[in-house]
Amino acid sequence: MTIPESLASALRSVNQTFETSVIKSRDFDSVDRVYTNNARILPPGADLIEGRGAIAEFWRQAVTGLNVLGATLTTVDARMMGECILEVGRAELQLANGQSVSLKYVVEWQREDGAWKWHTDIWNTNS
Amino acid sequence: MTIPESLASALRSVNQTFETSVIKSRDFDSVDRVYTNNARILPPGADLIEGRGAIAEFWRQAVTGLNVLGATLTTVDARMMGECILEVGRAELQLANGQSVSLKYVVEWQREDGAWKWHTDIWNTNS
Repeated sequence: MTIPESLASALRSVNQTFETSVIKSRDFDSVDRVYTNNARILPPGADLIEGRGAIAEFWRQAVTGLNVLGATLTTVDARMMGECILEVGRAELQLANGQSVSLKYVVEWQREDGAWKWHTDIWNTNS
Repeated sequence: MTIPESLASALRSVNQTFETSVIKSRDFDSVDRVYTNNARILPPGADLIEGRGAIAEFWRQAVTGLNVLGATLTTVDARMMGECILEVGRAELQLANGQSVSLKYVVEWQREDGAWKWHTDIWNTNS
């Protein structure tokens, strides 16, 4: 079941928080507005990472280590699955060396304290 | 919501089909018993691939190209999400050169013609 436009807009707003606050502004505490409290990420090159504190630290190291300047997320589709939403998307990372990296991802969204957030987040690179 | 044991057993059986028929026996037509008809995979190093025919061809090239001898899937957890199941797991690939590769994955399961199958499948390596 495809999600209604109002809900798509709410998800888009969270994805923009990730793009602008977490990545572009390097405000890693703002992962609180993106991930649920006990979210899990499955990053390439590492094991499962659980919990918002550990996730903030992951992004701090990844963004500063790779010198990521920006990220653009594009939803391919998002479907309601019971109380959750499953989103499939593409992402582009802009690096300080002028290169960009193409990725794709699957995010399971859950509602926490009235807000939709990423609960399971896995991605990989296209090349 | 965690899934009941009977359902976990059904999923395990499909995962074993992947391990033994698709990977170990290199019977790539047996992806029909693992993936839904319009399933999507998101493999590292490639774009999204959609449809069972294209998925069979992906596994044919990946398994023969990397000379994969075996795969072991281990479910970390599986939860009902409406009509679907979301599984998070770990996988080990055994290569002909004696090396093994550690991966993790997220699979969305859907029911098709009475059988649970993989509908969305994304993974990456741990190192």
